[in-house]
Amino acid sequence: MKVTDAWPLAPRDVVLRLSELCEPLVLSRVESARKMADPWQECTDYAVALARQAGEVVREALKNEMNVMIKSSPADLVTATDQKVEKMLISFIKEKYPSHSFIGEESVAAGEKCVLTDNPTWIIDPIDGTTNFVHRFPFVAVSIGFVVNKKMEFGVVYSCVEDKMYTARKGRGAFCNGQKLQVSQQEDITKSLLVTELGSLRTPETVRIILSNMEKLLCIPIHGIRGVGTAAVNMCLVASGAADAYYEMGIHCWDMAGAGIIVTEAGGVLMDATGGPFDLMSRRIIAAGSKTLAERIAKEIQIVPFQRDDDN
Amino acid sequence: MKVTDAWPLAPRDVVLRLSELCEPLVLSRVESARKMADPWQECTDYAVALARQAGEVVREALKNEMNVMIKSSPADLVTATDQKVEKMLISFIKEKYPSHSFIGEESVAAGEKCVLTDNPTWIIDPIDGTTNFVHRFPFVAVSIGFVVNKKMEFGVVYSCVEDKMYTARKGRGAFCNGQKLQVSQQEDITKSLLVTELGSLRTPETVRIILSNMEKLLCIPIHGIRGVGTAAVNMCLVASGAADAYYEMGIHCWDMAGAGIIVTEAGGVLMDATGGPFDLMSRRIIAAGSKTLAERIAKEIQIVPFQRDDDN
Repeated sequence: MKVTDAWPLAPRDVVLRLSELCEPLVLSRVESARKMADPWQECTDYAVALARQAGEVVREALKNEMNVMIKSSPADLVTATDQKVEKMLISFIKEKYPSHSFIGEESVAAGEKCVLTDNPTWIIDPIDGTTNFVHRFPFVAVSIGFVVNKKMEFGVVYSCVEDKMYTARKGRGAFCNGQKLQVSQQEDITKSLLVTELGSLRTPETVRIILSNMEKLLCIPIHGIRGVGTAAVNMCLVASGAADAYYEMGIHCWDMAGAGIIVTEAGGVLMDATGGPFDLMSRRIIAAGSKTLAERIAKEIQIVPFQRDDDN
Repeated sequence: MKVTDAWPLAPRDVVLRLSELCEPLVLSRVESARKMADPWQECTDYAVALARQAGEVVREALKNEMNVMIKSSPADLVTATDQKVEKMLISFIKEKYPSHSFIGEESVAAGEKCVLTDNPTWIIDPIDGTTNFVHRFPFVAVSIGFVVNKKMEFGVVYSCVEDKMYTARKGRGAFCNGQKLQVSQQEDITKSLLVTELGSLRTPETVRIILSNMEKLLCIPIHGIRGVGTAAVNMCLVASGAADAYYEMGIHCWDMAGAGIIVTEAGGVLMDATGGPFDLMSRRIIAAGSKTLAERIAKEIQIVPFQRDDDN
């Protein structure tokens, strides 16, 4: 069964509809036991259904004219759809889980605090790849991460133009449209294909460091560097083994929270770009198919300083 | 009807099978008249059918282990599949059109001449995006261009993992899976999204110029730069309006011949990276949604010197 009605539905209707979607009429005993043993499985299923529904709204919006606004720089864009989709996601989740916390890209832009507590927290990017969205460049993702006691419990990234639903639940593996994902496990940087982005900050010093990092890596040499314009999809390409590693600085917790656990559950590693332990609020990441490769990238790249997400 | 038998078939069998595929049992009068009036329509149909069939071979090869060889540099790769697909394409076309000429990436690598005459010439890249292919990065294209009297008559680019068939016949528009393509017509570089690649040549001076060009463009500022790892697909993204322009130096006629006419038939322009008229053998291209944008990019970028394709 597929939820196909157009949004907006009342939150309660969606909760009812989505619970129908998530629960087959006759739950097997195994399934019931699994749900009872796993307090976050229901949230995972709900996030998948919501991400798919949000993706439909995004795809629909791609057909229409859009009004583009500028955020932190002329290359940092936002649209009414980013804001609308985030509001919908948060209101539906709040209705079902009123005690949970939220961090959302557009809520933070509107002045809400960006602090990660031990409370179950939904970290949401309604449209990862807004510049792509504005141009209809076909990589645009709805990203939902779920963190408890500051640890990632599940992640959902729906690349909605490609119709690829990436999911991972801690300890249960990572999947794309039901197919199990596995990183490349590449350790040799000279045989690696990397993904990264040029970012939206255009101060001469930032651009210089970003390009100088690419120069150092290219001249090792490596096989190449690609970038499809969304952190979440780039990370999912690492999870699926199509790219060997992704690195970036200047991105936010909502760009990484959904895809982070998809990478680790596919057998990959997350690391801070400094080479230290990964920190969701640090604005920096290396996601790689092996620890050796992640460490080598950390050794090559110069850090671009950014204010932490939780340093308001 | 779909040709699904595994290759290799005898060339004659494929010709028969493909002519079945291309010709409905009862050709309408309009259709017959169109074919008689257009000497290259049959070649176009044949190219589409062959590209689809070649794409099946490429997709099948992606499932297996592959043996990767190095060409001009450690980042310039080739596999047995590149060579096998090119041989098959050329042998099938030769069987049907024995008087036509050919330029193929792997034939040239094997020592054949790369000269464009006035004779009808098929210009073939069996796998555009070989590094992607090796990594299973999901953008890999079969590219077939057809040039008569040095003018592009039709082009076919089959992005075979995405299953997107891009086609254009001179004067008849460009299409992706039957849907008409239209460039963005963007003239304002500060609102543009560009596509380009870092290339496979890793001499320090080349890498420096390539990155310095990106720096100049980024700091204008522009919205961003993307690159999916194949010239042909990058150009088709311009044709479809998802990117506003593509530029690159160091690519070859077989990277541009299929997608070039797809860009112009979608309303875009081709220009040499110097700002002069486009030259298929020059190793340089700007493909843009507007002449204004192409000229602006030409003004910004420094030329990387490469030996012409026809300068053997």
